[in-house]
Amino acid sequence: MADILHRVGIKSQSLQNVYDALTTQAGLAGWWTSDTKGEGDQVGNIIAFRFGAGGFDMSVAELEAPTKVVWKVADGPQDWLPTTISFNLKQEDGYVILIFKHADWSEPVEFMHHCSTKWAIFLMSLKSLIENGKGNPDPWDIKIDNFN
Amino acid sequence: MADILHRVGIKSQSLQNVYDALTTQAGLAGWWTSDTKGEGDQVGNIIAFRFGAGGFDMSVAELEAPTKVVWKVADGPQDWLPTTISFNLKQEDGYVILIFKHADWSEPVEFMHHCSTKWAIFLMSLKSLIENGKGNPDPWDIKIDNFN
Repeated sequence: MADILHRVGIKSQSLQNVYDALTTQAGLAGWWTSDTKGEGDQVGNIIAFRFGAGGFDMSVAELEAPTKVVWKVADGPQDWLPTTISFNLKQEDGYVILIFKHADWSEPVEFMHHCSTKWAIFLMSLKSLIENGKGNPDPWDIKIDNFN
Repeated sequence: MADILHRVGIKSQSLQNVYDALTTQAGLAGWWTSDTKGEGDQVGNIIAFRFGAGGFDMSVAELEAPTKVVWKVADGPQDWLPTTISFNLKQEDGYVILIFKHADWSEPVEFMHHCSTKWAIFLMSLKSLIENGKGNPDPWDIKIDNFN
């Protein structure tokens, strides 16, 4: 098993603001993909994220407001099935520290390398959304692939 | 053991240009840290990278021009000792595809999460250096930590 790990400090005194960006349609659409359908504020909900033709359906597996969000991938590329995505938040020194984990890839395939870099880019988008009021969700994110 | 993985497509027809940015002082200073001393074009060379007070000394462990660069961390934070950093390059569809691995962390500590995100940011800086002629090395990189 292999995991994607990230840590981002977001200049904010509000855990709740970051938690909201991880659990509401408007928040998620503001930093990951503008084509987001569903609310992530109830365990068991499905959130549908689309990027052009493809995308991911996430099942909300665990919530502890305002510090923890866990999704199980319900549908998506085969490499993502089954994997688990978690966001843990804490307040330190005027920053909300986000600890991210996309866990349990069966193999460290090349697509996993790509997803690791893309997660960092989207977490930077989340940081920008909270700090500046504007993220860079798909389709305004940085293109790093040659898949299309 | 845990590994940091990334994959970045750099719009370029020249593997050599990217290889040069990984093996010359001028290239490395253009995307990772402006305080870089040493050339990385000979196996056994030490390259000293500094970020403010801290930093890393890398021993060039393996080179296959223009597709492979491997460094062993010779000195740096305890969590980086011993770890290995590799860059593998290939040409696909008008892109140089960079496959990055920072391997063999003994534990997935919080600092590893931070370094994973920072590597992505610096690889975006390398992409910008090659594509636009200008990177964002330290101290012009994006601050994501609360360590200072």
